[in-house]
Amino acid sequence: MDGFYERTTKDSINIDPLQTGGKLSEAARRALVEWGDGYSVCDFCPGTLDQIKTPPIYNFIHEELPEFLGCDVARVTNGAREGKFAIMHGVSSSYKCEKKAVVMDANAHYSSYVAAERAGLKVLLVPNSGYPEYKMDPEGYSEAIDSNDDVALALVTYPDGNYGNLPDVRKIAKICRKKGVPLLLNAAYAVGRMPVKMKELGADFIVGSGHKSMASAGPVGVMGMKEEFADLILRKSERHPAKEVELLGCTARGVTIMTLIASFPHVKSRIKKWGKEVEKARYFSKQVERFGIIQLGEKPHNHDLMFFESEILYNISKKAKGGRFFLYRELKKRRIHGIKPGLTRYFKLSTYGLRKEEIEYVINSFEEIISKYTKTAENN
Amino acid sequence: MDGFYERTTKDSINIDPLQTGGKLSEAARRALVEWGDGYSVCDFCPGTLDQIKTPPIYNFIHEELPEFLGCDVARVTNGAREGKFAIMHGVSSSYKCEKKAVVMDANAHYSSYVAAERAGLKVLLVPNSGYPEYKMDPEGYSEAIDSNDDVALALVTYPDGNYGNLPDVRKIAKICRKKGVPLLLNAAYAVGRMPVKMKELGADFIVGSGHKSMASAGPVGVMGMKEEFADLILRKSERHPAKEVELLGCTARGVTIMTLIASFPHVKSRIKKWGKEVEKARYFSKQVERFGIIQLGEKPHNHDLMFFESEILYNISKKAKGGRFFLYRELKKRRIHGIKPGLTRYFKLSTYGLRKEEIEYVINSFEEIISKYTKTAENN
Repeated sequence: MDGFYERTTKDSINIDPLQTGGKLSEAARRALVEWGDGYSVCDFCPGTLDQIKTPPIYNFIHEELPEFLGCDVARVTNGAREGKFAIMHGVSSSYKCEKKAVVMDANAHYSSYVAAERAGLKVLLVPNSGYPEYKMDPEGYSEAIDSNDDVALALVTYPDGNYGNLPDVRKIAKICRKKGVPLLLNAAYAVGRMPVKMKELGADFIVGSGHKSMASAGPVGVMGMKEEFADLILRKSERHPAKEVELLGCTARGVTIMTLIASFPHVKSRIKKWGKEVEKARYFSKQVERFGIIQLGEKPHNHDLMFFESEILYNISKKAKGGRFFLYRELKKRRIHGIKPGLTRYFKLSTYGLRKEEIEYVINSFEEIISKYTKTAENN
Repeated sequence: MDGFYERTTKDSINIDPLQTGGKLSEAARRALVEWGDGYSVCDFCPGTLDQIKTPPIYNFIHEELPEFLGCDVARVTNGAREGKFAIMHGVSSSYKCEKKAVVMDANAHYSSYVAAERAGLKVLLVPNSGYPEYKMDPEGYSEAIDSNDDVALALVTYPDGNYGNLPDVRKIAKICRKKGVPLLLNAAYAVGRMPVKMKELGADFIVGSGHKSMASAGPVGVMGMKEEFADLILRKSERHPAKEVELLGCTARGVTIMTLIASFPHVKSRIKKWGKEVEKARYFSKQVERFGIIQLGEKPHNHDLMFFESEILYNISKKAKGGRFFLYRELKKRRIHGIKPGLTRYFKLSTYGLRKEEIEYVINSFEEIISKYTKTAENN
């Protein structure tokens, strides 16, 4: 393989929220090599992916996963979005041609919206509180559901991928239950990072992401539900009665599920240290605010994913060599990866899994960069 | 990682049709390790998977793949079935609530059927010729399309996954074109094994499988189409105009697409030796028929996937120790993997990619096993 295919960022400190929770564990790295070949997990397949006993996929899907997610029935999917679509499509298919609606938070990930579009559901957005916290008011769900006779499903993003806000799911779930609308928890940034139990929170469905937050190769995800919805979402094919229609028979039929399983002990153990991760995030936020990099979203913050507004970096970018790309270049020079090239005024980052000294290094780097450009400006 | 997660079959000669074409190339093995982390390919994402220039995904999807598949527009999917569903769902979504139908060959893979069920399409099967060749008569498509006013799509499996038959796609395509029905080629066992060009065959859509036939980690697939269908199948989200709805934004967003790309030079080169693979398959078929293991499906055969009927092994199984599992055990002892445990009378296998001496070894093993049990019976 020539240098063309090298991953140039692999030795950097990674603060990209998409990537901090998906770094493979050592066990997953070994599983990757062992199970790399195409349909490797199908050596002893009895008919469907979830029934495979060697390797121990059956046990993972039917025993470990439901317990971990706090649900009755679980499946492995090709990702959180594929899980959301399977649920939305399953729900909407029971209505045949009536155009139904899904209520979701304004902070929802684009893939929730796109999954609803694909499933033919109308989307009703519950507004957030706007600048600077962008919080979700549970009562908004009540209003949205009441505004339309055809709400078949509600979705809440926990936390959302922009601000890292954790809405009050228990309250939202109570409202939904009262109105007879099942609730889907998009926990792509929660499952595998922090403790989250679907039924304790009162939700009816949950999806998580292996590559985003479960130290797994991608794409792979998890999906959980209450028993009462399993017949609908996991309905079997008429002609091929072993095959689940919404899963097209089998989903993560290869190496991705093996990295997910291999990382599972690591993931179960790391969520116990979630308190430390929140502490680190709050510490980071507090430190960079000293330089004028202001954290938006919930405060004090409850998640490693944080959104920042930075007039100072934006002002520097107007005059700096390289313009708006100056920040990316300065961070790259310091081997810090994860803020999108070109962003200076608004950006998000994650401190998940970073060692204390790496966090200090990132904080110091921001300070150094700001100080360098401010001094240059003063000297001119 | 303890022994529990070891792949016990890795040192065997593999004749499982699902697995012979998905063995990773050396380059793919290196890509696997390099790009194993979760969302690794998203380091420099400009918004959607197919637009990523580093690593060179854009070039692969927009330049190399359309040329290779002989189509106008290509995408990478999570597998052939996911591609079939995207096409069927895209086609059926344009009809809103009319219940449309898809015509497909009786040899179609179960996932074609399930994809149609999921997309809400009625399935009309074109019968095959039955025992012993199970061939598809192109005229059957004409009759099936005429039998129903609502046919929105036709599908043909090339080759099918049971008998390894290669139907006359050119004739089928001519019939479909005449009747105004677009044709989808399920080439999961063709793309990456043998030369196949969608437009030369007259089809409108094509899907292939990375893990099945393109020396790639799974799950991953490819999808190609004529330009005129791109607006429908790859329609963009109303709210998120960069995102393609049927792909839920991005599909193989991780290591799977990198193994696909890394294996691509190897795959392009191996399909040139397809004639040798057909020769090997025919040689194998001829040799084992001497022992009473009779090849069904097209004869002479045109693909490495072959289906066998073996009264002799079935008769042995009635008396052998271990019953119907005797064949699996005897083959396992000889480190030959790929015939499902318990099968003796009917089974399929593939000679794809096997060295000449491995083929001889498998042939000799069958001879030895039959001879062993026949002698035992004679001695009793």
